Amino acid sequence: MRLLEERILTDGKVRSGDVLKVDGFLNHLIDVRFAAELGREFHRLYADCGVNKILTIESSGIGVACLTAQFFDCPVLFAKKSKTKNIDADVYTTPVESYTHGTTYDVMVSKQYLGEGDRVLIIDDFLAKGNALLGLIRIVRQSGAELVGAGIVIEKAYQDGGKKVRDMGVRVESLARIASMDEENGIVFVD
Amino acid sequence: MRLLEERILTDGKVRSGDVLKVDGFLNHLIDVRFAAELGREFHRLYADCGVNKILTIESSGIGVACLTAQFFDCPVLFAKKSKTKNIDADVYTTPVESYTHGTTYDVMVSKQYLGEGDRVLIIDDFLAKGNALLGLIRIVRQSGAELVGAGIVIEKAYQDGGKKVRDMGVRVESLARIASMDEENGIVFVD
Repeated sequence: MRLLEERILTDGKVRSGDVLKVDGFLNHLIDVRFAAELGREFHRLYADCGVNKILTIESSGIGVACLTAQFFDCPVLFAKKSKTKNIDADVYTTPVESYTHGTTYDVMVSKQYLGEGDRVLIIDDFLAKGNALLGLIRIVRQSGAELVGAGIVIEKAYQDGGKKVRDMGVRVESLARIASMDEENGIVFVD
Repeated sequence: MRLLEERILTDGKVRSGDVLKVDGFLNHLIDVRFAAELGREFHRLYADCGVNKILTIESSGIGVACLTAQFFDCPVLFAKKSKTKNIDADVYTTPVESYTHGTTYDVMVSKQYLGEGDRVLIIDDFLAKGNALLGLIRIVRQSGAELVGAGIVIEKAYQDGGKKVRDMGVRVESLARIASMDEENGIVFVD
């Protein structure tokens, strides 16, 4: 998606440790009008797939997921990363390793909100090693829901997460695919 | 807001420990069309206040904040609860005690995204003891931005958070105000 690639080149910052900072429009400050355009594109890609639920993971996927859901006119379910008093005991759960936080945490979804009859589109802001996405896929499979595919805003295509998930037969649509990036030479997109 | 009160009575569940579960439409599964109606109401209340930034806190405020921001045509800034590799070193920060998690954490906002010239509306899903809201207010004041007010989806009016914040001279608009609730007698709204 050209609009997104241009925005990443303008406002994204490459930092040491393979970090792409897009906190100026995506995952700290959210440019809501722009994020809705990402949602419109996800809808164009998956419009004919009967999506009736969007699944994401807290926190930075929630904004884009909600704006995307408006085009599908469906609810958003966000997986939680820690057990709180506000979640039911009866949950699907799976461990996920976090690159940005340097820890492993349990991801949880209440069983009552995901199951047979759901046609699920997973939305997330980043795909790199694929840990979060693989965790969400495991949860969809535990639940008996149908997985339609995944919509990713930015894929680090030089890491193996996208390949792993596509090799499982899961459709993955990434709006920007980064072929390489470093502080010196900047960002190069696939294609 | 009648629509919200009815939804709370239909889908909300009172649990021991002063917990109101609204995870079926607000803070786990998000009924996006409904949440957009909450956003429309916040806009009606604050339409003439020159709001140009919405501030919330991860995670459960983000969805409503983004849907509200569409009516104001402004960005959402969400405060983070833990330091990750994706946030700049240069942050406003304040400690906040979490009732649902039973811990105290540092809330952070990058200095580059909040400051003079911003007219800020704080949006959050719950107001009870007011800890999160007071933390966000401290951050707005640190930044030099103008605080327009707060928009809360559900206020537990029998707790003192709302009084504390209003006594500071901050405008607080809560779409549903609970006068009392318990497992036996259910939920009673103010008014």
